[in-house]
Amino acid sequence: MSRPVEIVEVGPRDGLQNDPANLTTEQKLEFIARLEAGGVTRMESGSFVSPRAVPKMADSAEVFAGLDRSRPTKHIALALNEKGVRRAIDAGASEINFVLVAGQGFGTRNQGMTPEQSAEALIHCAPLVHEAGIPLSATISVAFGDPYDGEVEVAVLTDLAHAAEAARARELALGDTIGVATPWDVHARFDAVRAAAPDLRLRAHFHDTRGAALGNVYAAMQSGVDIIDASCGGIGGCPFAPAATGNVATEDVVYMLHRAGFETGIDLDAMIATAKWLESVLGHPVSSSLSKAGSFPA
Amino acid sequence: MSRPVEIVEVGPRDGLQNDPANLTTEQKLEFIARLEAGGVTRMESGSFVSPRAVPKMADSAEVFAGLDRSRPTKHIALALNEKGVRRAIDAGASEINFVLVAGQGFGTRNQGMTPEQSAEALIHCAPLVHEAGIPLSATISVAFGDPYDGEVEVAVLTDLAHAAEAARARELALGDTIGVATPWDVHARFDAVRAAAPDLRLRAHFHDTRGAALGNVYAAMQSGVDIIDASCGGIGGCPFAPAATGNVATEDVVYMLHRAGFETGIDLDAMIATAKWLESVLGHPVSSSLSKAGSFPA
Repeated sequence: MSRPVEIVEVGPRDGLQNDPANLTTEQKLEFIARLEAGGVTRMESGSFVSPRAVPKMADSAEVFAGLDRSRPTKHIALALNEKGVRRAIDAGASEINFVLVAGQGFGTRNQGMTPEQSAEALIHCAPLVHEAGIPLSATISVAFGDPYDGEVEVAVLTDLAHAAEAARARELALGDTIGVATPWDVHARFDAVRAAAPDLRLRAHFHDTRGAALGNVYAAMQSGVDIIDASCGGIGGCPFAPAATGNVATEDVVYMLHRAGFETGIDLDAMIATAKWLESVLGHPVSSSLSKAGSFPA
Repeated sequence: MSRPVEIVEVGPRDGLQNDPANLTTEQKLEFIARLEAGGVTRMESGSFVSPRAVPKMADSAEVFAGLDRSRPTKHIALALNEKGVRRAIDAGASEINFVLVAGQGFGTRNQGMTPEQSAEALIHCAPLVHEAGIPLSATISVAFGDPYDGEVEVAVLTDLAHAAEAARARELALGDTIGVATPWDVHARFDAVRAAAPDLRLRAHFHDTRGAALGNVYAAMQSGVDIIDASCGGIGGCPFAPAATGNVATEDVVYMLHRAGFETGIDLDAMIATAKWLESVLGHPVSSSLSKAGSFPA
């Protein structure tokens, strides 16, 4: 019950990318600094993708240039092709997270790639990352369901895991991009991917769109996963369900894990305070439970 | 994966009792009828407690008098002392659910009883219920934490389970009244209660105050529980955290279970429609995820 769990904060990238508000580069840097002060040591700090497709991440190079490098924080940059990988390396990313996709409907619309093409792109780009001496990880988006195609076969995930292994990625996340997973499915899919690619460290990325995200975190941990993506405040929304909530909230994950006896290194009170600060900057309430209910016991 | 799970709808009692709105008896009866039309066959339809302490349930006898008895629905009445049990019997309750309490701080303030006194009250009242030929069940409130005393010892739960067994209750629920449980704790506490009182059917009652309710449902089911309390729309709030969400939402539980291959007999679309109807009657949004995000696959 006291094993450490690594929280990867994704608010500055996945959270802000899908929030209606537009933060300035300075506000993003303040967000990142507040997260670091709250104990976050690894986070998605930007994305090197088309600025036309994702205008909210157009200033990622400026964000990376403004980071406080005296801190030991690992700043992850997202990329999904060679151009993005080169830009991320140039920006001084501590780690590159490559986006694979498990569904053709979502993949072709979101990044112009089928699942197989995303695997080929990873294998093509990996040497660049390794030559730069930067850790390479990957996330399989829509790993639990595709908003256009519906169900996603487990075999697609194991094929992508083989590709991640071939690319010498050190870590692979299964991402429930649209928040449709159930704990049973989470357990089954992580088990299947682990069996297919036993050398990969596994990470879980859940959205709380349908309320099951903390249950999915629990199921992933039962399957041996100890690296969890989460977003301060639960920001991030869902482009396919405008009224729905976003990424699983960092403070909700931290409350559950601390209360269950796990260690995250994150200060729950600081994270709740940052969620409340976010509300003032974003101009709307955030969706996390802990920012409303507070911790227990008092 | 295809075993049936019984959903006990608690919206008309636990939900409405803690909602800021005041529904008329006719509106409560329409709510109940809509739930029945959506496939609910067992629900908490009222509470026979002090009308001064819980004014929103003061018309429970009128609600029970207005029920459509041509339907097979089991209408549960809540009671916590002899007077309430007698009133529930007179009102024609199909089942009486007696409230035990696991924390002294909450128990003395909420019902004027310590845990031991609530156990004695159950044993005192049980013969009345059995003589009336009505099924008797019990719920242990604050079984995962007390808002005044903090942590609750597992031994309190097993003592109360022995009392429920001695009273020949057929079913016992562990209630996370203030929404502080984690899946790990849920698994451990249901296992402990099952070991202490193996003949009792177990039921799970969760509030989503801190976002873990669906994870707690999953953990309870892993521990062998197949009876789940839930409230349409997730209404119910939390008197100890005014901004927080309420009972776990019926439609969120049903989505998760159906998607994982379980059967509940409940029509998800009808439940979402009733949650939206509730918003118009209550005059405020409900907190369930499915009413915002919709089902998947489409």
